[in-house]
Amino acid sequence: MEFAEYFPVWNKLTEEEQGLLRENALFRRVEKGSLLHGGSADCQGLLLVVSGQLRAYIVSEEGREITIYRLFERDLCLLSASCIMQNIQFEITIEAEKDSELYVVPSRIYKALMERSVSVANYTSQVMAGRFSEVMWLLEQIMWKSFDKRLAEFLVNESVLEGTLCLKLTHEMIGNHLGTAREVVTRMLRYFQSEGLVRLSRGTVEITDSPRLEELSRK
Amino acid sequence: MEFAEYFPVWNKLTEEEQGLLRENALFRRVEKGSLLHGGSADCQGLLLVVSGQLRAYIVSEEGREITIYRLFERDLCLLSASCIMQNIQFEITIEAEKDSELYVVPSRIYKALMERSVSVANYTSQVMAGRFSEVMWLLEQIMWKSFDKRLAEFLVNESVLEGTLCLKLTHEMIGNHLGTAREVVTRMLRYFQSEGLVRLSRGTVEITDSPRLEELSRK
Repeated sequence: MEFAEYFPVWNKLTEEEQGLLRENALFRRVEKGSLLHGGSADCQGLLLVVSGQLRAYIVSEEGREITIYRLFERDLCLLSASCIMQNIQFEITIEAEKDSELYVVPSRIYKALMERSVSVANYTSQVMAGRFSEVMWLLEQIMWKSFDKRLAEFLVNESVLEGTLCLKLTHEMIGNHLGTAREVVTRMLRYFQSEGLVRLSRGTVEITDSPRLEELSRK
Repeated sequence: MEFAEYFPVWNKLTEEEQGLLRENALFRRVEKGSLLHGGSADCQGLLLVVSGQLRAYIVSEEGREITIYRLFERDLCLLSASCIMQNIQFEITIEAEKDSELYVVPSRIYKALMERSVSVANYTSQVMAGRFSEVMWLLEQIMWKSFDKRLAEFLVNESVLEGTLCLKLTHEMIGNHLGTAREVVTRMLRYFQSEGLVRLSRGTVEITDSPRLEELSRK
Protein backbone atom coordinates (compact mmCIF):
# COMPACT_ATOMS: atom_id res chain seq x y z
CA MET A 1 0.00 0.00 0.00
CA GLU A 2 1.31 3.43 -0.84
CA PHE A 3 1.92 6.35 1.51
CA ALA A 4 -0.71 8.48 -0.20
CA GLU A 5 -3.43 6.09 0.90
CA TYR A 6 -2.50 6.55 4.55
CA PHE A 7 -2.30 10.30 4.60
CA PRO A 8 -5.85 11.64 4.98
CA VAL A 9 -5.52 15.09 3.39
CA TRP A 10 -3.32 13.88 0.52
CA ASN A 11 -5.73 15.13 -2.14
CA LYS A 12 -5.70 18.62 -0.71
CA LEU A 13 -1.94 18.98 -1.19
CA THR A 14 -0.25 20.56 -4.18
CA GLU A 15 1.89 18.30 -6.37
CA GLU A 16 4.98 19.87 -4.87
CA GLU A 17 3.81 19.14 -1.32
CA GLN A 18 2.92 15.58 -2.29
CA GLY A 19 6.40 15.18 -3.74
CA LEU A 20 7.98 16.45 -0.52
CA LEU A 21 6.11 13.83 1.49
CA ARG A 22 6.68 10.99 -0.95
CA GLU A 23 10.42 11.62 -1.07
CA ASN A 24 10.87 11.94 2.67
CA ALA A 25 8.43 9.52 4.30
CA LEU A 26 10.30 6.44 5.47
CA PHE A 27 8.77 3.00 5.67
CA ARG A 28 9.82 1.14 8.82
CA ARG A 29 9.20 -2.24 10.37
CA VAL A 30 9.50 -2.31 14.15
CA GLU A 31 9.43 -5.24 16.52
CA LYS A 32 7.07 -5.60 19.46
CA GLY A 33 8.58 -3.74 22.41
CA SER A 34 10.51 -1.17 20.33
CA LEU A 35 10.67 2.29 21.84
CA LEU A 36 9.51 4.85 19.24
CA HIS A 37 9.40 8.04 21.28
CA GLY A 38 10.55 9.14 24.72
CA GLY A 39 13.77 8.49 26.55
CA SER A 40 16.50 7.90 24.00
CA ALA A 41 14.20 7.90 20.95
CA ASP A 42 13.06 11.49 20.76
CA CYS A 43 11.07 13.40 18.20
CA GLN A 44 11.62 11.30 15.11
CA GLY A 45 8.56 12.67 13.42
CA LEU A 46 5.00 11.88 12.62
CA LEU A 47 4.11 8.20 12.68
CA LEU A 48 1.48 6.73 10.39
CA VAL A 49 0.51 3.23 11.37
CA VAL A 50 0.24 0.79 8.46
CA SER A 51 -0.21 -2.34 10.59
CA GLY A 52 0.28 -3.41 14.18
CA GLN A 53 -0.41 -1.56 17.41
CA LEU A 54 1.32 1.24 19.32
CA ARG A 55 0.86 2.27 22.92
CA ALA A 56 1.30 5.81 24.26
CA TYR A 57 1.83 6.08 28.00
CA ILE A 58 3.28 8.28 30.72
CA VAL A 59 5.66 7.28 33.48
CA SER A 60 5.89 8.75 36.99
CA GLU A 61 9.16 9.55 38.75
CA GLU A 62 8.74 6.30 40.66
CA GLY A 63 8.34 4.35 37.43
CA ARG A 64 4.57 3.86 37.56
CA GLU A 65 2.85 3.84 34.16
CA ILE A 66 -0.57 4.57 32.74
CA THR A 67 -1.72 4.00 29.16
CA ILE A 68 -2.99 7.20 27.55
CA TYR A 69 -4.11 5.80 24.24
CA ARG A 70 -3.42 3.17 21.62
CA LEU A 71 -2.86 3.56 17.90
CA PHE A 72 -4.01 1.14 15.24
CA GLU A 73 -3.94 0.83 11.44
CA ARG A 74 -4.35 4.22 9.73
CA ASP A 75 -3.93 6.17 12.98
CA LEU A 76 -1.56 9.09 13.01
CA CYS A 77 0.71 9.77 15.96
CA LEU A 78 1.37 13.45 16.43
CA LEU A 79 3.10 13.40 19.79
CA SER A 80 6.08 11.53 18.37
CA ALA A 81 6.76 14.86 16.63
CA SER A 82 6.14 16.88 19.81
CA CYS A 83 9.24 19.01 19.23
CA ILE A 84 7.47 20.76 16.35
CA MET A 85 4.25 21.28 18.31
CA GLN A 86 4.62 24.44 20.31
CA ASN A 87 3.09 24.27 23.77
CA ILE A 88 3.21 20.50 24.13
CA GLN A 89 4.74 20.41 27.58
CA PHE A 90 4.54 16.83 28.67
CA GLU A 91 6.62 13.73 28.17
CA ILE A 92 4.98 10.78 26.55
CA THR A 93 6.45 7.40 25.71
CA ILE A 94 5.39 5.51 22.60
CA GLU A 95 6.23 1.88 22.03
CA ALA A 96 5.24 -0.84 19.59
CA GLU A 97 2.86 -3.14 21.44
CA LYS A 98 2.88 -5.59 18.53
CA ASP A 99 5.21 -6.01 15.54
CA SER A 100 4.25 -3.00 13.44
CA GLU A 101 4.77 -1.30 10.10
CA LEU A 102 4.84 2.47 9.93
CA TYR A 103 5.58 5.44 7.79
CA VAL A 104 7.72 8.08 9.50
CA VAL A 105 7.47 11.66 8.26
CA PRO A 106 10.54 13.50 9.63
CA SER A 107 9.64 16.36 11.98
CA ARG A 108 11.20 19.14 9.86
CA ILE A 109 9.28 17.99 6.77
CA TYR A 110 5.97 17.92 8.60
CA LYS A 111 6.68 21.30 10.15
CA ALA A 112 7.33 22.78 6.72
CA LEU A 113 4.04 21.34 5.44
CA MET A 114 2.07 22.65 8.42
CA GLU A 115 3.42 26.11 7.78
CA ARG A 116 2.38 26.23 4.15
CA SER A 117 -0.75 24.10 3.88
CA VAL A 118 -3.92 25.19 5.65
CA SER A 119 -5.31 21.67 5.10
CA VAL A 120 -2.38 20.06 6.91
CA ALA A 121 -2.56 22.66 9.70
CA ASN A 122 -6.27 22.05 10.28
CA TYR A 123 -5.89 18.30 9.99
CA THR A 124 -3.19 18.49 12.66
CA SER A 125 -5.63 20.35 14.94
CA GLN A 126 -8.22 17.67 14.37
CA VAL A 127 -5.86 14.85 15.27
CA MET A 128 -4.78 16.73 18.39
CA ALA A 129 -8.42 17.34 19.35
CA GLY A 130 -9.03 13.60 19.03
CA ARG A 131 -6.17 12.72 21.39
CA PHE A 132 -7.19 15.51 23.76
CA SER A 133 -10.67 13.97 23.87
CA GLU A 134 -9.22 10.56 24.69
CA VAL A 135 -7.30 12.03 27.62
CA MET A 136 -10.43 13.83 28.88
CA TRP A 137 -12.27 10.52 28.68
CA LEU A 138 -9.49 8.85 30.67
CA LEU A 139 -9.58 11.62 33.27
CA GLU A 140 -13.32 11.15 33.73
CA GLN A 141 -12.85 7.40 34.10
CA ILE A 142 -10.17 7.86 36.74
CA MET A 143 -12.15 10.48 38.63
CA TRP A 144 -15.57 8.97 38.51
CA LYS A 145 -15.48 5.29 37.65
CA SER A 146 -14.68 2.72 40.30
CA PHE A 147 -11.72 0.42 39.72
CA ASP A 148 -13.78 -2.78 39.30
CA LYS A 149 -15.58 -1.22 36.30
CA ARG A 150 -12.35 0.11 34.76
CA LEU A 151 -10.70 -3.31 35.09
CA ALA A 152 -13.75 -5.08 33.61
CA GLU A 153 -13.75 -2.66 30.68
CA PHE A 154 -10.02 -3.12 30.11
CA LEU A 155 -10.37 -6.92 30.01
CA VAL A 156 -13.34 -6.75 27.63
CA ASN A 157 -11.42 -4.40 25.29
CA GLU A 158 -8.27 -6.53 25.37
CA SER A 159 -10.32 -9.58 24.54
CA VAL A 160 -11.76 -7.83 21.46
CA LEU A 161 -8.32 -6.52 20.40
CA GLU A 162 -6.62 -9.89 20.76
CA GLY A 163 -9.54 -11.93 19.48
CA THR A 164 -9.36 -14.38 22.39
CA LEU A 165 -10.85 -14.92 25.85
CA CYS A 166 -7.51 -16.14 27.17
CA LEU A 167 -5.38 -13.04 27.70
CA LYS A 168 -1.62 -13.24 28.15
CA LEU A 169 -1.26 -10.48 30.73
CA THR A 170 0.54 -10.31 34.04
CA HIS A 171 -1.03 -8.33 36.87
CA GLU A 172 1.85 -5.89 36.58
CA MET A 173 1.12 -5.26 32.88
CA ILE A 174 -2.53 -4.57 33.72
CA GLY A 175 -1.44 -2.20 36.49
CA ASN A 176 0.79 -0.34 34.01
CA HIS A 177 -2.12 0.13 31.63
CA LEU A 178 -4.51 1.36 34.28
CA GLY A 179 -2.07 3.34 36.41
CA THR A 180 -2.67 1.13 39.44
CA ALA A 181 -0.39 -0.81 41.79
CA ARG A 182 -0.01 -4.51 41.00
CA GLU A 183 -1.41 -5.50 44.41
CA VAL A 184 -4.66 -3.65 43.70
CA VAL A 185 -5.02 -5.47 40.37
CA THR A 186 -4.35 -8.83 42.02
CA ARG A 187 -6.94 -8.23 44.72
CA MET A 188 -9.63 -7.25 42.22
CA LEU A 189 -8.84 -10.11 39.84
CA ARG A 190 -9.16 -12.57 42.73
CA TYR A 191 -12.52 -11.06 43.53
CA PHE A 192 -13.53 -11.41 39.84
CA GLN A 193 -12.40 -15.05 40.01
CA SER A 194 -14.46 -15.72 43.14
CA GLU A 195 -17.46 -14.26 41.27
CA GLY A 196 -16.84 -16.60 38.32
CA LEU A 197 -15.96 -13.83 35.84
CA VAL A 198 -12.37 -14.94 35.16
CA ARG A 199 -9.99 -17.82 35.78
CA LEU A 200 -6.42 -16.92 36.76
CA SER A 201 -3.22 -18.79 36.10
CA ARG A 202 0.43 -17.78 35.77
CA GLY A 203 0.67 -14.93 33.27
CA THR A 204 -2.87 -15.34 31.92
CA VAL A 205 -6.36 -14.10 32.68
CA GLU A 206 -9.10 -16.17 31.08
CA ILE A 207 -12.51 -14.59 30.75
CA THR A 208 -15.10 -17.18 31.78
CA ASP A 209 -18.25 -15.05 31.81
CA SER A 210 -18.09 -12.41 29.07
CA PRO A 211 -21.70 -11.19 29.34
CA ARG A 212 -21.43 -10.40 33.07
CA LEU A 213 -18.00 -8.82 32.66
CA GLU A 214 -19.39 -6.59 29.91
CA GLU A 215 -22.38 -5.70 32.03
CA LEU A 216 -20.08 -4.70 34.89
CA SER A 217 -17.91 -2.57 32.57
CA ARG A 218 -20.92 -0.62 31.30
CA LYS A 219 -22.31 0.26 34.74
CA MET B 1 -7.85 48.46 24.41
CA GLU B 2 -8.63 47.28 20.93
CA PHE B 3 -9.40 43.76 19.74
CA ALA B 4 -6.28 43.64 17.56
CA GLU B 5 -4.07 43.85 20.63
CA TYR B 6 -5.65 40.72 22.08
CA PHE B 7 -5.48 38.54 19.02
CA PRO B 8 -1.95 37.10 18.83
CA VAL B 9 -1.62 36.44 15.09
CA TRP B 10 -3.34 39.69 14.06
CA ASN B 11 -0.34 40.89 12.06
CA LYS B 12 -0.30 37.72 10.00
CA LEU B 13 -3.83 38.29 8.72
CA THR B 14 -4.74 39.98 5.47
CA GLU B 15 -6.65 43.26 5.68
CA GLU B 16 -9.79 41.48 4.63
CA GLU B 17 -9.40 38.91 7.40
CA GLN B 18 -8.70 41.64 9.93
CA GLY B 19 -11.85 43.40 8.80
CA LEU B 20 -13.90 40.23 9.23
CA LEU B 21 -12.72 39.91 12.82
CA ARG B 22 -13.10 43.59 13.69
CA GLU B 23 -16.66 43.70 12.39
CA ASN B 24 -17.78 40.53 14.09
CA ALA B 25 -15.97 40.36 17.42
CA LEU B 26 -18.33 41.35 20.23
CA PHE B 27 -17.22 43.02 23.42
CA ARG B 28 -19.04 41.64 26.46
CA ARG B 29 -19.08 42.26 30.19
CA VAL B 30 -20.12 39.27 32.25
CA GLU B 31 -20.81 39.01 35.96
CA LYS B 32 -19.13 36.60 38.32
CA GLY B 33 -20.97 33.30 38.13
CA SER B 34 -22.21 33.71 34.52
CA LEU B 35 -22.30 30.52 32.50
CA LEU B 36 -20.40 31.04 29.23
CA HIS B 37 -20.37 27.54 27.78
CA GLY B 38 -22.04 24.22 28.55
CA GLY B 39 -25.62 23.44 29.44
CA SER B 40 -27.85 26.12 27.98
CA ALA B 41 -24.99 28.36 26.77
CA ASP B 42 -23.50 26.35 23.95
CA CYS B 43 -20.87 27.13 21.39
CA GLN B 44 -21.01 30.89 21.31
CA GLY B 45 -17.57 31.15 19.84
CA LEU B 46 -14.00 31.89 20.73
CA LEU B 47 -13.52 33.86 23.95
CA LEU B 48 -10.65 36.30 24.39
CA VAL B 49 -10.25 37.41 27.97
CA VAL B 50 -9.67 41.14 28.40
CA SER B 51 -9.96 41.15 32.19
CA GLY B 52 -11.25 38.91 34.95
CA GLN B 53 -11.02 35.17 35.36
CA LEU B 54 -12.80 32.19 33.80
CA ARG B 55 -12.96 28.63 35.02
CA ALA B 56 -13.29 25.55 32.80
CA TYR B 57 -14.52 22.41 34.53
CA ILE B 58 -16.24 19.09 33.95
CA VAL B 59 -19.21 17.67 35.82
CA SER B 60 -19.96 14.01 36.51
CA GLU B 61 -23.41 12.44 36.18
CA GLU B 62 -23.70 12.72 39.96
CA GLY B 63 -22.90 16.43 39.85
CA ARG B 64 -19.30 16.22 41.06
CA GLU B 65 -16.95 18.81 39.55
CA ILE B 66 -13.26 19.19 38.83
CA THR B 67 -11.50 22.30 37.54
CA ILE B 68 -9.63 21.63 34.31
CA TYR B 69 -8.00 25.01 33.84
CA ARG B 70 -8.44 28.73 34.40
CA LEU B 71 -8.22 31.59 31.94
CA PHE B 72 -6.82 35.02 32.67
CA GLU B 73 -6.17 38.27 30.81
CA ARG B 74 -5.10 37.66 27.21
CA ASP B 75 -5.95 33.95 27.32
CA LEU B 76 -7.96 32.49 24.51
CA CYS B 77 -10.69 29.95 25.13
CA LEU B 78 -11.06 27.52 22.27
CA LEU B 79 -13.40 25.01 23.81
CA SER B 80 -16.22 27.54 23.97
CA ALA B 81 -16.20 27.11 20.19
CA SER B 82 -16.02 23.32 20.41
CA CYS B 83 -18.71 22.87 17.75
CA ILE B 84 -16.25 24.02 15.08
CA MET B 85 -13.43 21.78 16.36
CA GLN B 86 -13.88 18.40 14.81
CA ASN B 87 -13.08 15.52 17.15
CA ILE B 88 -13.66 17.42 20.39
CA GLN B 89 -15.83 14.82 22.06
CA PHE B 90 -16.20 15.98 25.61
CA GLU B 91 -18.44 18.37 27.48
CA ILE B 92 -16.83 21.22 29.30
CA THR B 93 -18.44 24.01 31.31
CA ILE B 94 -16.99 27.51 31.33
CA GLU B 95 -18.06 30.14 33.80
CA ALA B 96 -16.88 33.57 34.88
CA GLU B 97 -15.15 33.14 38.22
CA LYS B 98 -14.86 36.91 38.62
CA ASP B 99 -16.57 39.81 36.87
CA SER B 100 -14.93 39.68 33.44
CA GLU B 101 -14.62 41.48 30.12
CA LEU B 102 -14.29 39.46 26.94
CA TYR B 103 -14.29 39.56 23.21
CA VAL B 104 -16.44 36.88 21.61
CA VAL B 105 -15.59 35.79 18.05
CA PRO B 106 -18.67 33.97 16.71
CA SER B 107 -17.96 30.32 15.85
CA ARG B 108 -18.78 30.59 12.14
CA ILE B 109 -16.43 33.57 11.73
CA TYR B 110 -13.57 31.78 13.44
CA LYS B 111 -14.22 28.66 11.40
CA ALA B 112 -14.03 30.66 8.17
CA LEU B 113 -10.73 32.19 9.29
CA MET B 114 -9.25 28.82 10.24
CA GLU B 115 -10.11 27.48 6.82
CA ARG B 116 -8.37 30.26 4.91
CA SER B 117 -5.47 31.38 7.11
CA VAL B 118 -2.61 28.98 7.81
CA SER B 119 -1.52 31.29 10.65
CA VAL B 120 -4.89 31.06 12.39
CA ALA B 121 -4.98 27.29 11.83
CA ASN B 122 -1.53 26.80 13.36
CA TYR B 123 -2.23 29.22 16.19
CA THR B 124 -5.37 27.21 16.99
CA SER B 125 -3.24 24.05 17.19
CA GLN B 126 -0.88 25.78 19.58
CA VAL B 127 -3.65 26.91 21.90
CA MET B 128 -5.11 23.43 21.88
CA ALA B 129 -1.69 21.92 22.61
CA GLY B 130 -1.41 24.26 25.61
CA ARG B 131 -4.76 23.14 27.06
CA PHE B 132 -3.93 19.52 26.28
CA SER B 133 -0.72 19.96 28.28
CA GLU B 134 -2.64 21.39 31.22
CA VAL B 135 -4.94 18.37 31.25
CA MET B 136 -1.95 16.00 31.08
CA TRP B 137 -0.45 17.84 34.04
CA LEU B 138 -3.72 17.49 35.94
CA LEU B 139 -3.87 13.78 35.13
CA GLU B 140 -0.36 13.30 36.49
CA GLN B 141 -1.27 15.19 39.66
CA ILE B 142 -4.34 13.06 40.21
CA MET B 143 -2.52 9.82 39.50
CA TRP B 144 0.67 10.43 41.33
CA LYS B 145 0.39 13.24 43.83
CA SER B 146 -1.17 12.64 47.23
CA PHE B 147 -4.17 14.74 48.21
CA ASP B 148 -2.41 16.72 50.97
CA LYS B 149 0.09 18.06 48.42
CA ARG B 150 -2.62 18.89 45.87
CA LEU B 151 -4.63 20.74 48.51
CA ALA B 152 -1.56 22.65 49.72
CA GLU B 153 -0.74 23.64 46.13
CA PHE B 154 -4.30 24.75 45.48
CA LEU B 155 -4.33 26.98 48.58
CA VAL B 156 -0.94 28.51 47.71
CA ASN B 157 -2.13 29.27 44.14
CA GLU B 158 -5.43 30.74 45.31
CA SER B 159 -3.57 32.96 47.73
CA VAL B 160 -1.40 34.30 44.89
CA LEU B 161 -4.41 34.77 42.57
CA GLU B 162 -6.48 36.58 45.19
CA GLY B 163 -3.59 38.49 46.71
CA THR B 164 -4.58 37.55 50.27
CA LEU B 165 -3.85 34.90 52.90
CA CYS B 166 -7.49 34.88 53.96
CA LEU B 167 -9.36 32.88 51.33
CA LYS B 168 -13.12 33.02 51.03
CA LEU B 169 -13.70 29.39 50.12
CA THR B 170 -16.10 26.78 51.45
CA HIS B 171 -14.93 23.18 51.70
CA GLU B 172 -17.42 22.32 48.99
CA MET B 173 -15.93 24.89 46.60
CA ILE B 174 -12.47 23.44 47.19
CA GLY B 175 -13.84 19.95 46.57
CA ASN B 176 -15.33 21.12 43.27
CA HIS B 177 -11.98 22.48 42.14
CA LEU B 178 -10.04 19.38 43.06
CA GLY B 179 -12.65 16.78 42.15
CA THR B 180 -12.87 15.50 45.72
CA ALA B 181 -15.75 14.95 48.16
CA ARG B 182 -16.34 17.76 50.67
CA GLU B 183 -15.73 15.40 53.61
CA VAL B 184 -12.24 14.58 52.35
CA VAL B 185 -11.43 18.29 52.05
CA THR B 186 -12.74 18.96 55.57
CA ARG B 187 -10.67 16.16 57.07
CA MET B 188 -7.46 17.33 55.41
CA LEU B 189 -8.06 21.00 56.28
CA ARG B 190 -8.55 20.03 59.93
CA TYR B 191 -5.26 18.16 59.79
CA PHE B 192 -3.60 21.26 58.26
CA GLN B 193 -5.11 23.32 61.09
CA SER B 194 -3.76 20.96 63.74
CA GLU B 195 -0.35 21.33 62.10
CA GLY B 196 -0.60 25.12 62.27
CA LEU B 197 -0.70 25.63 58.49
CA VAL B 198 -4.18 27.18 58.30
CA ARG B 199 -6.92 28.58 60.54
CA LEU B 200 -10.50 27.65 59.67
CA SER B 201 -13.68 29.59 60.21
CA ARG B 202 -17.07 29.64 58.50
CA GLY B 203 -16.53 30.07 54.75
CA THR B 204 -12.86 31.05 55.04
CA VAL B 205 -9.48 29.35 55.12
CA GLU B 206 -6.70 31.55 56.44
CA ILE B 207 -3.15 30.55 55.65
CA THR B 208 -1.07 30.93 58.80
CA ASP B 209 2.20 29.37 57.69
CA SER B 210 2.84 30.10 54.00
CA PRO B 211 6.43 28.78 53.86
CA ARG B 212 5.52 25.36 55.23
CA LEU B 213 2.40 25.13 53.05
CA GLU B 214 4.51 25.93 49.99
CA GLU B 215 7.11 23.40 51.01
CA LEU B 216 4.42 20.73 51.34
CA SER B 217 2.97 21.63 47.91
CA ARG B 218 6.34 21.21 46.21
CA LYS B 219 7.14 17.78 47.63
